[in-house]
Amino acid sequence: MELIDGKKAAAEIKQEIAAAVEKRVAEGKRRPHLAAILVGHDGGSETYVAHKIKACAECGFQSSLIRFESTPEEPLSQDELLAAVDKLNNDPDIDGFIVQLPLPRHIDENAVIEAINPEKDVDGFHPVNVGRQSLGLPCFHSATPAGIVELLARNGIATSGKRVVIVGRSNIVGKPLAAMLMQKGDRANATVTVCHSATPDLASVTRQADILVAALGRPGFVTADMVADGATVIDVGTTRVPDASRKTGFRLSGDVDFESVAPKCSFITPVPGGVGPMTICMLMKNTLLAAERAEEKK
Amino acid sequence: MELIDGKKAAAEIKQEIAAAVEKRVAEGKRRPHLAAILVGHDGGSETYVAHKIKACAECGFQSSLIRFESTPEEPLSQDELLAAVDKLNNDPDIDGFIVQLPLPRHIDENAVIEAINPEKDVDGFHPVNVGRQSLGLPCFHSATPAGIVELLARNGIATSGKRVVIVGRSNIVGKPLAAMLMQKGDRANATVTVCHSATPDLASVTRQADILVAALGRPGFVTADMVADGATVIDVGTTRVPDASRKTGFRLSGDVDFESVAPKCSFITPVPGGVGPMTICMLMKNTLLAAERAEEKK
Repeated sequence: MELIDGKKAAAEIKQEIAAAVEKRVAEGKRRPHLAAILVGHDGGSETYVAHKIKACAECGFQSSLIRFESTPEEPLSQDELLAAVDKLNNDPDIDGFIVQLPLPRHIDENAVIEAINPEKDVDGFHPVNVGRQSLGLPCFHSATPAGIVELLARNGIATSGKRVVIVGRSNIVGKPLAAMLMQKGDRANATVTVCHSATPDLASVTRQADILVAALGRPGFVTADMVADGATVIDVGTTRVPDASRKTGFRLSGDVDFESVAPKCSFITPVPGGVGPMTICMLMKNTLLAAERAEEKK
Repeated sequence: MELIDGKKAAAEIKQEIAAAVEKRVAEGKRRPHLAAILVGHDGGSETYVAHKIKACAECGFQSSLIRFESTPEEPLSQDELLAAVDKLNNDPDIDGFIVQLPLPRHIDENAVIEAINPEKDVDGFHPVNVGRQSLGLPCFHSATPAGIVELLARNGIATSGKRVVIVGRSNIVGKPLAAMLMQKGDRANATVTVCHSATPDLASVTRQADILVAALGRPGFVTADMVADGATVIDVGTTRVPDASRKTGFRLSGDVDFESVAPKCSFITPVPGGVGPMTICMLMKNTLLAAERAEEKK
């Protein structure tokens, strides 16, 4: 069994991006500039955005954080948020931006996502990018599935001709990863099955996987009986589980019962330190790509 | 074994649409109006467009055919075609339109498709519609996969909790059908596998299907050994095979070896008369939907 080290891969990728940025700067080009809109003070969102801003610094990017307060008493209006999106769409200094999700319930997330200029949608959540991804056209791939594809490639795990089984059909992991891996091409070309809560006899399906991806958000859901000997297991779960022994009061738990599953695997990702660190990396890659495309358009 | 009669279902749907149109007209609303752009004189394209115009008449729609000549000596320029698309985008009298594919090779099909206003893209080929379909949002579903979903529903064949195996990963059938059937919801909720030319031991995968969809365009490819007893088989293939005994000089051949496969099935679609007639029907449904949405926006 070999552990897939997402932390190490992420560090390498950030170094590669930083080198590309310094090359750009030496050529007289601008540093890529990522902006993030954060509404309210959700604990998870604060942490994610802080990590993204930190990653920008590591990659030599400029970054901007645009904060909005929103309370039940004084909710941020959707129009105000859409105006902020529009401003970033039209700001030539911004290469890409994200609106950190989730948004307060009174705001229509889809309306906000669809308001983002697809050419600056470095999260890859806009329907144009989702659609172009499915069609096999150039796009921004959403970060978590792109991180999984990158992790597999960097660890020499081929996907072509392989059976991939994905458990979970979310819009940010299961569905876009399926779309990526069923394309033609070197890092794709897999036979992909998407399973979910309505799949009967799930274990009989997951046991067919050369590469099993668990992305349903249920701690320890995938057990040894669900995994074939020699399979590669990718654990996308990052559920916060209360843990009094930690300073933070919680620990991250994956969807895979690591103890029992790991001995059967050829490769497996740990949680934390597997897929997680790759996600922010791929956001950085998308931002660099956005800057390069903006440059080409000049 | 029960034969799925696509011709009968299509006739019923066209009657339903025609009734809805007459109700609209009685309410003082406009008839839905579909336009088709046809470039050159490809035999298949001429036939398809003629069928679409005829279906418009059956449904009580207005229709417009916009023809462009294009020869190797005097090719239609892409800009001219884009100007025609733009005109239809901005014509309030047109509810939906299609650009009949394939286009001459010197024209970038994707650029033309992306120029269509997604709200008039009744073929459902624009990335916005492909993306919204994947995300489970309101959209125009592309016609052939929508026709398959409709055929299954009208024949009482449940998809929820079923194993669906799709052979073929085209942008107009395999991928969008997978996206539709893996959603939550009554006419979806299936465990979907997409197979293709790179799938090893294909028969072992297709034999697991409760519902097997053949959409690869290779006549007679699916043989009895690839099908489980009691499966439902949907044959999307419509390859023109030379046949001197026919007036046209060809016959349509499906991807399924009907003679050997049919006896094993609970349900099977014939070719012709199965999925084929449904496709144009679903284009009509999309056009009616486009007219209704335009009405709501007024």
